[in-house]
Amino acid sequence: MKFDYSEKVKALQGQLTDFMESVVYPNERTYEEYVDNQQDPWSSVPPIMEEMKTKAKQAELWNLFLPEEGRKLTNVEYAPLCEIMGRSVIGPEVFNCNAPDTGNMEVLVRYGSEEQKSQWLDPLLNGEIRSCFAMTEPDVASSDATNIEAKIERDGDEYVISGKKWWSSGGGDPRCKFAIFMGKTDPDAHRYEQQSMIIVPMDAPGVKIKRKLSVFGYTHAPHGHAEIEFDHVRVPVSNILWGEGKGFAIAQGRLGPGRIHHCMRLIGSAERALEEMCKRVKERVAFQRPLADQGVIQAWIADSRIDIEQARLLTLKAAYMMDTVGNKEAKKEIAMIKVVAPSMALRVIDRAIQAFGGAGVSEDFPMANHWAQARTLRIADGPDEVHRRAVAKQELLDY
Amino acid sequence: MKFDYSEKVKALQGQLTDFMESVVYPNERTYEEYVDNQQDPWSSVPPIMEEMKTKAKQAELWNLFLPEEGRKLTNVEYAPLCEIMGRSVIGPEVFNCNAPDTGNMEVLVRYGSEEQKSQWLDPLLNGEIRSCFAMTEPDVASSDATNIEAKIERDGDEYVISGKKWWSSGGGDPRCKFAIFMGKTDPDAHRYEQQSMIIVPMDAPGVKIKRKLSVFGYTHAPHGHAEIEFDHVRVPVSNILWGEGKGFAIAQGRLGPGRIHHCMRLIGSAERALEEMCKRVKERVAFQRPLADQGVIQAWIADSRIDIEQARLLTLKAAYMMDTVGNKEAKKEIAMIKVVAPSMALRVIDRAIQAFGGAGVSEDFPMANHWAQARTLRIADGPDEVHRRAVAKQELLDY
Amino acid sequence: MKFDYSEKVKALQGQLTDFMESVVYPNERTYEEYVDNQQDPWSSVPPIMEEMKTKAKQAELWNLFLPEEGRKLTNVEYAPLCEIMGRSVIGPEVFNCNAPDTGNMEVLVRYGSEEQKSQWLDPLLNGEIRSCFAMTEPDVASSDATNIEAKIERDGDEYVISGKKWWSSGGGDPRCKFAIFMGKTDPDAHRYEQQSMIIVPMDAPGVKIKRKLSVFGYTHAPHGHAEIEFDHVRVPVSNILWGEGKGFAIAQGRLGPGRIHHCMRLIGSAERALEEMCKRVKERVAFQRPLADQGVIQAWIADSRIDIEQARLLTLKAAYMMDTVGNKEAKKEIAMIKVVAPSMALRVIDRAIQAFGGAGVSEDFPMANHWAQARTLRIADGPDEVHRRAVAKQELLDY
Amino acid sequence: MKFDYSEKVKALQGQLTDFMESVVYPNERTYEEYVDNQQDPWSSVPPIMEEMKTKAKQAELWNLFLPEEGRKLTNVEYAPLCEIMGRSVIGPEVFNCNAPDTGNMEVLVRYGSEEQKSQWLDPLLNGEIRSCFAMTEPDVASSDATNIEAKIERDGDEYVISGKKWWSSGGGDPRCKFAIFMGKTDPDAHRYEQQSMIIVPMDAPGVKIKRKLSVFGYTHAPHGHAEIEFDHVRVPVSNILWGEGKGFAIAQGRLGPGRIHHCMRLIGSAERALEEMCKRVKERVAFQRPLADQGVIQAWIADSRIDIEQARLLTLKAAYMMDTVGNKEAKKEIAMIKVVAPSMALRVIDRAIQAFGGAGVSEDFPMANHWAQARTLRIADGPDEVHRRAVAKQELLDY
Repeated sequence: MKFDYSEKVKALQGQLTDFMESVVYPNERTYEEYVDNQQDPWSSVPPIMEEMKTKAKQAELWNLFLPEEGRKLTNVEYAPLCEIMGRSVIGPEVFNCNAPDTGNMEVLVRYGSEEQKSQWLDPLLNGEIRSCFAMTEPDVASSDATNIEAKIERDGDEYVISGKKWWSSGGGDPRCKFAIFMGKTDPDAHRYEQQSMIIVPMDAPGVKIKRKLSVFGYTHAPHGHAEIEFDHVRVPVSNILWGEGKGFAIAQGRLGPGRIHHCMRLIGSAERALEEMCKRVKERVAFQRPLADQGVIQAWIADSRIDIEQARLLTLKAAYMMDTVGNKEAKKEIAMIKVVAPSMALRVIDRAIQAFGGAGVSEDFPMANHWAQARTLRIADGPDEVHRRAVAKQELLDY
Repeated sequence: MKFDYSEKVKALQGQLTDFMESVVYPNERTYEEYVDNQQDPWSSVPPIMEEMKTKAKQAELWNLFLPEEGRKLTNVEYAPLCEIMGRSVIGPEVFNCNAPDTGNMEVLVRYGSEEQKSQWLDPLLNGEIRSCFAMTEPDVASSDATNIEAKIERDGDEYVISGKKWWSSGGGDPRCKFAIFMGKTDPDAHRYEQQSMIIVPMDAPGVKIKRKLSVFGYTHAPHGHAEIEFDHVRVPVSNILWGEGKGFAIAQGRLGPGRIHHCMRLIGSAERALEEMCKRVKERVAFQRPLADQGVIQAWIADSRIDIEQARLLTLKAAYMMDTVGNKEAKKEIAMIKVVAPSMALRVIDRAIQAFGGAGVSEDFPMANHWAQARTLRIADGPDEVHRRAVAKQELLDY
Repeated sequence: MKFDYSEKVKALQGQLTDFMESVVYPNERTYEEYVDNQQDPWSSVPPIMEEMKTKAKQAELWNLFLPEEGRKLTNVEYAPLCEIMGRSVIGPEVFNCNAPDTGNMEVLVRYGSEEQKSQWLDPLLNGEIRSCFAMTEPDVASSDATNIEAKIERDGDEYVISGKKWWSSGGGDPRCKFAIFMGKTDPDAHRYEQQSMIIVPMDAPGVKIKRKLSVFGYTHAPHGHAEIEFDHVRVPVSNILWGEGKGFAIAQGRLGPGRIHHCMRLIGSAERALEEMCKRVKERVAFQRPLADQGVIQAWIADSRIDIEQARLLTLKAAYMMDTVGNKEAKKEIAMIKVVAPSMALRVIDRAIQAFGGAGVSEDFPMANHWAQARTLRIADGPDEVHRRAVAKQELLDY
Repeated sequence: MKFDYSEKVKALQGQLTDFMESVVYPNERTYEEYVDNQQDPWSSVPPIMEEMKTKAKQAELWNLFLPEEGRKLTNVEYAPLCEIMGRSVIGPEVFNCNAPDTGNMEVLVRYGSEEQKSQWLDPLLNGEIRSCFAMTEPDVASSDATNIEAKIERDGDEYVISGKKWWSSGGGDPRCKFAIFMGKTDPDAHRYEQQSMIIVPMDAPGVKIKRKLSVFGYTHAPHGHAEIEFDHVRVPVSNILWGEGKGFAIAQGRLGPGRIHHCMRLIGSAERALEEMCKRVKERVAFQRPLADQGVIQAWIADSRIDIEQARLLTLKAAYMMDTVGNKEAKKEIAMIKVVAPSMALRVIDRAIQAFGGAGVSEDFPMANHWAQARTLRIADGPDEVHRRAVAKQELLDY
């Protein structure tokens, strides 16, 4: 039992924090203003993003999420770094550590053929293209993955792909070149072997972005959340990942790291909210005293620190288990943090918003946007209720 | 003790519900699409709004909030009607019952001179113009109204007005013709007599709308939330309301009805969320059962009904006290519902969002926008903490 | 819609409050000390109880719960009075308004034969004897009443009664003369017609009090919570209530008023806790300020007032519906308050306990005992979960 | 960062668990029954306790809390063991690891003179005598330790001690031989140097146990919670601990380990509640399904596991910091777990109680008693509010 970060991690934390302070935070507004001033905010990515990416690559703060790449970090080593990136909405992409690309890269590393890797993984790893993940469907309760209705049908050397997908985050990005699509290859197979994953180029005929969904008013352009129709899209059979019927298995594998990365980032966003709150309440005076002297505000600060610290430790423990006993054995812990982290972040950020008054819900501070993103994470990658159920089932196994 | 609505109220409830179903709900999307498709969404109001207003006026469902006008309803009679309007984000304006115009009309009815009434109140009552309320300031903790820094200085027959205001909701509306502005006429007077309210035409030289703030990601165009700079704006002395030093007294009077109207609307938005949730969970199936059969979902529905019902009763009781013993005597009850209703609505709407999954946070259903508006009401018109303090002080008086 | 108590009720509130202050509160300690100093606390009831009962009878503050008796109060009229009685743990018995006798009296009034009434109801109404209710069983989940395993078998002119019951509150009282026993007369009948209720004299052969259960350390002697074994107890067939198979129907009828009475009393206990808290925090000083000046304490007071007021209004509304549309039509509202009131009281009392520090958990103040009793009411007469389910089912009926 | 227990710890966990299962749990009822059947439950300790202590000593599971003794465990090593002891109300004493003796032993180890050690520490370490801690006072808000009114006045070779103390847990134990008493030696000294600690033999003239307080309805005989009057009690000057004016400093030192030990035990009691709940819900059936299949119950189980796991990790981290940077540097973390652990245990135990129905609040299962003890720990050793304040102040230091 040891609660210190290694020297290696501490050094990277320092480097990353410096980078955030000198490069990322000062450009948050630059990024937003570029988007706000575009006629069509979906048409281009703020140039500052590519500039920051170049700097991150030079600093070797690149692809840190991937144990197989670069600095070859474990999950426990990556956690405190991912957290720092998550302090800014634009942070993760700067370091090529943003969802859903990270999850897609992991899938390709683990299940991709050599051909798939060279065509799709390499440019992703280089940050040259972006990707999306097409799993959730508008017409069914996707919290139960067996409900999926999309079809992947073999026709000679091709698969014919049809279905409606939404919440394909990143699907609106002009650089998005492919989707990993989940659908049924064999509706009559065993419940967990009906589905497959396949690579679909975004420019394939029949792929149509219907619209971009908003999240509490945020479009998150130019990244966005796309609703996509796949209408008899044809792709070569070699685009299948791993093999027919492996969709569920890949999803299970994909979602473990993806989920914990979300949690790490949420801790960062909560940490930033707490920091902003502390600064604000020392400055502002009401009823003849700084807000920082009010007992209610002090309780918010204490509870926020307590909430963050507990969520962080649980995330680190889950990461440690992934490193030592593997993602599968760590599934209870992953489900646990997936329940804990979004709600924790929502509580902490909400307190900060309240401490800020009107400024808190506006674009002047990062809290409102962070809040909206955290709220989606009580739904995305499995709603809380499904994860609670999973934890309970594991727990009851012992009796 | 009697818990039935009167026959008069029941008839109006029926009429209003019909109007909502035949006129308002079907045009929510029409309204939104018009705004979304405008080059400059602040430049014009969707024409459907004026069409609906005409219909509401014809149906005599107009200005129902004002005891002095039309149907001459008491607060207890208005409450269940206001609730119905609040079910739609665009509802209140259709019936000329939207904030902040209602509060401004009340101020003018009660404290306006004849001249002020004919110039500003009449067109507001007719729905021909809109107005805003300029009280909150970006540079101080406005939860403590004595912090206000804006100045109103007499110079001959004019007042010279200077100050920075924000969250002047409705200030972005192209039809907005004046602001009621709060500032200090005498910084040396007694704490509660330093401030005054004055009418400032929006086209007066020196009035500058700096920007429109967003609430989470919503701009709420074309209504919006303006940050306005008043730079040595000159208005005739006759624009003062009631008299110098009366700002605080008017604010106290203005905010009572304003606050309870917000609460009534919040009940409506919660009621609609519950309704949407019930419909959804009967349709969607997960893990081989309709969501409506899951115990956790049932608990959400029960708790939502319980939360709404309690908040409604407390709102009605506060309204009853306003009607019988007056706004001043009802101040504890008004403070209580101001604490209760926003949090209640947030809980109910949040459960509905969770039951909907991704659809819940999007523009496809009214919940996300309702949520964002409810969240601001834990801050606007006094943050929860200030109202809790007021309730406690009243309570402790008895000992 | 009218929120004032009638003049009649206000007069009774005044009379009852005076009685509590002059007779009941000053004797709470007398009562407790008598019990504490008994060798066998189950052997006798503190004489002060009978003295207080005599006074209450003289003041015509007797059997107020029963619409058919004495002052013939409606539920709405009784609610604010029952609340006052509930402020003291020993209060309800003083006025012959204590559970489970009230529920048993209601059953006898509504379903008892003339013979049953003269033998059992009259002495109960006079406060000469006490009774208990034998429904819950230790070996099954009694939250589902169909689980009941006790048997009532006809044998000639007698029924033979067997079963294990517990939480038969009042069963330990030396004055307890009979139980209303629930069991199955026909296990093969329709689900809701298998069960019957029958009067069992406590001195019948085969009735054995196994032990008295404690509630968070409280034995509640000499009233207590008995575990009773009924081993082939024989009673005349005339002891059956209403008729074979009517047990479920009686239970439904019995529990409505019983549940709402509990809620009324809980409001009283919460109100008293809030009162004690307010007094305490004005007196005690920490960190150079009275506790009453601390923001956190003020938030507790405000939230407590808000919690109580909302629960009271919901209770009154449910009572109003019972009076106007009947217990059956009011079942959703009764279920709602049964969920609300215990948790509300627990929250309010818990805050008061915390404000008192160590004194709060001790016998020096009424809060700890009130808390323990409130906690059982999240279980007794149906656990929260069952009532939430019932509310949700009602709510979903509309869709 | 490493989340595994060491081999040494795992072996001790196994040994301790075996001991609990073979020796402690089977004798919980034996212990209780002995107490319940005593004429005067304060007169003697159930003999089974001394038998179990002997076995624990033989097994070298003795004084594990003390880094200086026996197995010389660090805090991180002791935490998972203390947790196991805390699963039973009678557990800690069996292993000589019960409060307040552990805290008193720590004080004597660290601040006691050789003479004090041989007279008082050695028999405590051997489990031959018991002790109590006399700090809290009935007449002032003891959450603010500077409020203490008790006096320690020098008179020649003696100190004269006067004051009223309560919640001196263990003061009712027939084996209790001395109190560590806190009072003011110099009311005019600096705020934190007014107070001293001194050893007072329980048989000294002027020491009078006024009564034993109950916690909810539990007397916790024969250990108990004493109210003690010290009326001009004379002790030799050599009884002072460390020196005059050191009371506050010792209290700070004493309370760190004491607080974290409470937290460890609370985790154990929560863990046992969760275990009991899981067993119960698999057995009981309601509405045709095992309770374990109900979504609401599953949510309770998941949330309990999540709550426990987070609190455990935070406790371990605080312990780790105490081991590595010292108790003083770990004060924020100690304050944090002191806030977290009692509330966590209360939530988990409360859910278990609800799942058990009536059985849950009774003496048939350990939950109700564990709940009552956990509730006192939101007050004892500093109420939550004081610890939150301390955490917030630390947090705000950085800005």
